[in-house]
Parts: sequence; structure tokens; C-alpha cells
Amino acid sequence: MSNLIINEARLWDSLMQTATIGAGPNGGIARLTLSIHDKDVRDWLTSQCESLGMSVRVDEVGNIFAYRAGQNTDALPIAMGSHLDTQPTGGKFDGILGVLGALEVIRTLHDAGYTTDAPLMLVNWTNEEGSRFSPAMLGSGVYAGVYDIDYAYGREDVEGQSFGDALEAIGYKGSIKAGAIPLSSMFELHIEQGPILEAEDKTIGVVQGVQAMRWYEVKLTGRAAHTGSTPMTMRCNALVGAARAIEGIDKVGHHYAPDAVATVGFLDVKPNSNNVIPGEVHFTIDMRHPDDAILDQMEQDVKKCIEKVAAEIGLKIEFKCISKTAAVVFDQDCINAVRFAADKAGLNTRDIVSGAGHDAAHIAHKVPTTMIFVPSEGGLSHNEAEATASHQCAAGVQVLLDAVLEYDRRHTDSSKSI
Amino acid sequence: MSNLIINEARLWDSLMQTATIGAGPNGGIARLTLSIHDKDVRDWLTSQCESLGMSVRVDEVGNIFAYRAGQNTDALPIAMGSHLDTQPTGGKFDGILGVLGALEVIRTLHDAGYTTDAPLMLVNWTNEEGSRFSPAMLGSGVYAGVYDIDYAYGREDVEGQSFGDALEAIGYKGSIKAGAIPLSSMFELHIEQGPILEAEDKTIGVVQGVQAMRWYEVKLTGRAAHTGSTPMTMRCNALVGAARAIEGIDKVGHHYAPDAVATVGFLDVKPNSNNVIPGEVHFTIDMRHPDDAILDQMEQDVKKCIEKVAAEIGLKIEFKCISKTAAVVFDQDCINAVRFAADKAGLNTRDIVSGAGHDAAHIAHKVPTTMIFVPSEGGLSHNEAEATASHQCAAGVQVLLDAVLEYDRRHTDSSKSI
Repeated sequence: MSNLIINEARLWDSLMQTATIGAGPNGGIARLTLSIHDKDVRDWLTSQCESLGMSVRVDEVGNIFAYRAGQNTDALPIAMGSHLDTQPTGGKFDGILGVLGALEVIRTLHDAGYTTDAPLMLVNWTNEEGSRFSPAMLGSGVYAGVYDIDYAYGREDVEGQSFGDALEAIGYKGSIKAGAIPLSSMFELHIEQGPILEAEDKTIGVVQGVQAMRWYEVKLTGRAAHTGSTPMTMRCNALVGAARAIEGIDKVGHHYAPDAVATVGFLDVKPNSNNVIPGEVHFTIDMRHPDDAILDQMEQDVKKCIEKVAAEIGLKIEFKCISKTAAVVFDQDCINAVRFAADKAGLNTRDIVSGAGHDAAHIAHKVPTTMIFVPSEGGLSHNEAEATASHQCAAGVQVLLDAVLEYDRRHTDSSKSI
Repeated sequence: MSNLIINEARLWDSLMQTATIGAGPNGGIARLTLSIHDKDVRDWLTSQCESLGMSVRVDEVGNIFAYRAGQNTDALPIAMGSHLDTQPTGGKFDGILGVLGALEVIRTLHDAGYTTDAPLMLVNWTNEEGSRFSPAMLGSGVYAGVYDIDYAYGREDVEGQSFGDALEAIGYKGSIKAGAIPLSSMFELHIEQGPILEAEDKTIGVVQGVQAMRWYEVKLTGRAAHTGSTPMTMRCNALVGAARAIEGIDKVGHHYAPDAVATVGFLDVKPNSNNVIPGEVHFTIDMRHPDDAILDQMEQDVKKCIEKVAAEIGLKIEFKCISKTAAVVFDQDCINAVRFAADKAGLNTRDIVSGAGHDAAHIAHKVPTTMIFVPSEGGLSHNEAEATASHQCAAGVQVLLDAVLEYDRRHTDSSKSI
């Protein structure tokens, strides 16, 4: 068992140093994927990896793979990674922590002259955020075969520039086919982006998988009319209908809690004028649960609620599912390695299911994968005020190191596996 | 008592003829105030009035006054009028009916060689709609002393053109001081813009006044957070708060119905993204009632409701009144003349309070005033599909004629007054 300890100060320095690349106005980062800032941070990462003796390759979708040789040249590399891109008003930890954490693991091993049995691979997945080029998690999605490369190249930003052109422009359009660089497994360290660990005073989230998620678009159509001259009993108010639906959807979320969430995040009123009764309201529903079957029940409950509301008021309903992703269950061996590492460090843990999507969700379809969560202050994320304390970041990286070493140990020789 | 009958076909022809001036794509009219179409219809109206021997004057705010002499040269003129401007997607009846109805009254008197005791005045009030230059009812407001002329001239459209320049550009900036042309009274024929007359199968609305109206702006602030990773019990969802408030405001409207209305017509969600719990919602409330004291109570009820909702969820509230107009009670003599005229024609009537604002609401502060309503099909208005049947328009104009003649008769000699 190793007694290697990661260097908290060095980790924090790297976090703060890279935070200056595309620094946002309020202490965060605005480092959109494939922007000049993304190029700069990629260049920085590449040089750091090369200075540690790693060989860096880039695949056709811009994913960066930095390889550190192991003792066993036949073994597939154990990957650690996340993403360096941010939201337009992103924070200093979402994604970056998983990449710089991996770098700190490599630096620690390098300083100690420790060579793992299997090789290690540090990965930066391209365009996790999806805020410049939709969809999110595009690089890992192409790697895992969820999207093909031409689909990715054709995605356009709001100014009409294609993903393929933008990738070429920053010099990160590699020639290696996506998915052709093999991995044995992947560990992704990430901030929780939710309030649970902080609220329960836990340091490490042992991530079990990613919730199933569905998005729906709903349009309620009533009748626009003059607010002054239309009596209350003669109205067909689409916004009153939407209000009852929002309350009902929130109730469905509470009914299936604690594992369920249900939210109306987007809502558009037409004609949206002070003195016109709303004739049309369009909104979206985001529902998540670790169990697809329960999500089916939630969908039925929400549908019934909207039908009841529409009948009360006389509204027409359009209801459609616009996105549906199945639940992801992470690999038990990887999870056990994380739990072992957290216990070894004497850290409080909590099993947790990720409510947010992550590159790990795609990679889990290809190789054994799991994630490690550290707390997000106030549950805040996709926000410049995003915060995780230095010692919490360090705890996560220490667990990442020990989980990878433990996974390596267990898989070096099958006789050693628990 | 006169047996004059207005000419339904001629009235309808004029409605259809002027509807071609600024015709909208879907059967309505797009005749924004002070546009080239507004100039064209003003020119047409002026020539029609002059051909009937009337003298036409324009005041400094562009209001058109067409004068027909009476037998008594000392008497002040009885006015009939409304507005020729429309909403960007306006209908063929809102406003125009009151002006062309007045023209038809004059034509009928002209054909019969009938001279009233008091003079008559046909009026076109400038910028009733307020959709190009805010506020609405600007011409009548300046006439009544509610706004001063420099305020009016300084109003700007979205392209930055001032009301004063636009008025001059179409040649309708008169030299007569607004308010300097005296009137004895005013009768405004208008479509109801609501569904009550149609629903109750009444032909004439005997308008008692205009509802008091208040507008409020409300901002609810919660905490934006990730929809996937924030458990239901740890949310501070501003949209769920707004939904409960909308339901509560609707309930207040119903509680004080049938005279009250309460509506949320405008709502804006931030950040308005599918996967972010709304952190801030901003909405407006429009509440109306004929009695200011009851509107005070409604305001208290709505405030209590919003405070309760905000406390349940933990939201911060900003609540402010942005507009407040007192109830207007129309003149009883004018109302009696309308009732007399409708009874004479054997028409079904209903006393009604206007929920919408009208030029008559300003003029009522200066001289005895009332309105006559005719049905709006489906209650529809500010919509190209706005419809009132020819016989309904004719019934309204017949009542306008007889109400003016009756008012003239009662006021010719005080001994004749009832």
C-alpha cells in the first residue's frame, strides 16, 4: 500500500494559475470550448504533461490523451480525466479539478519515482459544457460511439462557425480516430454541483452512477384577451394553467424524493404583455431519477396533472419528450477502489448518484468507470462564485490517487483481486 | 322626436373603405399613429367632413375637430368621436367605428337637412393606442390637461423619432392650443373589446364609467441551481413561488368577481434554461375594479398571498405599484340620453363598466361624457380578427345619433330637461 501524499499547495497553485486563462469578471472563468483560452489552457496542460515525461496525443475530436508508461507494457492504461472548458460564466472547479487533479496525481508519482503496473492516461475531454456547441459531452460522446465524428464537426456555434473549423483553428484537430486510443477504465474527479455533501458534512461522494434524465416540451394554448374587459369566468388563461402545472410538477418531484427531481426551468409567455391575458405558454420539464421505471411513473403523474389542469381551464396541450437518457450504473470494481481510498484517508463518504451529466456517463458505456465527488459550496455551479476549499480539492485528489493505485493493484494480477 | 334612420350600408362601406388604408395581412389594419396611413385616413376624413359643409381644425397635438353649426350660435358643440389609429395588428372596428359612426350621424343629418340646436363636433383623438408612442390616449390626455404638450412632443418611438417631429411630418401639427376648442359634452361609440354583450345577447352597452386600474411589478428572488444535483428539499425555486402567486392572484380576481379582474400578463424567468432551477422571476399584475376601495382590498389580499408564498419557499420579494388610475364615473345626463336612445330603438341593453381605457376617460374630467358599446365577436380585440356585424355597428350608430339629438333637446332649454 502506497503512502504517497499529494501536494495540496501545488494543486491549488495550478487551479489558480489556470483560472487566469479566460478569467471571468467576477472571479470565475469564461473559457468556452475551442476558444483561444481553451487553446491556451490545452497548450499549458500539454507542456506540463510533457515535462513529466508523458507522451501527448490528440484524437480527431480534440480529446487530449497524455500517456505515462507502466511496468506492464501490455496492460491498457487506467484513465483519469475531465474537461478544461467552462460555461460562459463558469467557475474555477467544474471540470478543471478533474484534469488538474489527474495532473497532480502524475506529479506526485513522478516526484516519488513510482511506476504503476498498468500505464496511466490523463484525459481532457473536448466540449463537455456544450454551451458553445450543443450537445454537451461531445468529445466523450464521440469517443464512446454515441455520436459520429461528422455530426460533431457539423455542430455550429451562434455565429455559424462549425465545431470542425473551430477545432482546426486552435490546432487541436488530431488525426487519431476517436475511440481508437484504448483505456482499461476511467476515474473522473468532479465537484458535486449540488448541496448534498456540504449539507451532510461529507468530504467524498462515492458516485454510484448518473440519474436517468428526461426533458419534455409542453405548450398550453388558451385564448389571448384584454385583461380589463374579459371577466374572470370567461377566460382561458394559459399562464394560470402553466402555474398549476408547475406546482403539480414540483409536487411530483417531492412525492418521489429524495432520489427524484422535477423542475420547470424554462418558460415563455405569449404575447407577454401587461394587459393581455396569456394565450400561450411554452415550458420545459426536466425530470431525473436513478431508476428508469420510476421515471416512467413520474412521467405518467405529470401528464395526468397537466391534463387535469388543461381540462379545468379549457386549454389545448402539446406534450413531447425531447431528450431521454437512461440511467448509468458505474462499475463496482472502480467504486470499490474509490471507497477503499476514502476509507484509507479516513474521510467521511456518502454514496451519491450524479444528477448532472458528465463525460464519465458516456465513457461508462465503453470501459469500467466511476466518479469521485467533492463538495460544492452552497451547491453552486455554472456560476462564477462556484467554490470548493483547497483542503476539499486535495482530499478528492488524494482519493483519486489511491483509488487508481488500488485499482491498478487489484488488476495487476487477477489472483490479487478482492 | 326625430325619426331619422342612419344608413347601415353607407356606414359599412366607409368602414371597409378606410380599412384598406394600412390594411393588415390578415384582414385587419396596421395603421400606427402618425404613420403615412394615419395621414391618409386623416386626409380622407377631412375631405369627407368638408364635403358635408363642416369646418375642420387641428390642435397642437393633432386632434382633428370638424365643426357643424347649430341653430344656437352661442351653444358649445356636442362632440362625437374616437380614434383612427390602430394597434400594429389591429382590427377594423377598435376606434374607427366611433369616428365613422360620428361621420354617419352627420351625413344622416345633412341628408335630412336637420340642424341641431347646439353645434356638433366630430373629433379624431391622436394616438389613442399608444403602441408607437407611449402612453396611450395621448391626444385626449393633452386636451384634458393630464399631460402637457412638451411631454407629448418629446415621446419617442422605437426608432427614436419624436412625436412632435412625426406630427409635423404628416402635416397635422396644428397651431390651436390643446384644450382651447371648447365642447359641451362627448359621446364615444366603441366596440366592447370584451365578451360580455355577446355572451348575454345584448346589442348595446350603456357605459357607466371606466374601471380603476393598477399595475404592479413583482420580483421574486430565490437561488438558481442545477436541476439535476439539487434535491427537492434544498431548493429555493422562484418559479414555483411565482406559480403559487399567479394562482393566488387569479383567486383574488374570482373572489371579487364579477366586477373585479386580476391578471398576470407578463412574466420573465431568469436564467430561463432547461436545466437551471429559476433563481429569479419578474412579473406584472393588472387589477381593475369600478370601486377604488375594493381595489385597495384586492391589493392587500394579493400582497398577503405573495408574502405567504415567499415565506414558504424562502424567496425575497420586491413589490411596487407602477401605475394607478382612479375609477371614472360617466355623466348621468349623457348616460340617460344613451339609455333613452336605445329604448327608442327597442334594443337590448346592459349597463357596463369599461375595463379598457378610452379617450372618453380623459375627456370625462373636462366635460360631461359617456360611451356606447357594441358587441365584439368572441370578445376579441387588438387582433386582426376583431369582428362586429354590420347590423351591430349600425345599431350603435343609431343610438349615437338619437342620444346626441336627445342630449341636444334636453339642453336646448333647461325647462325641457327631464
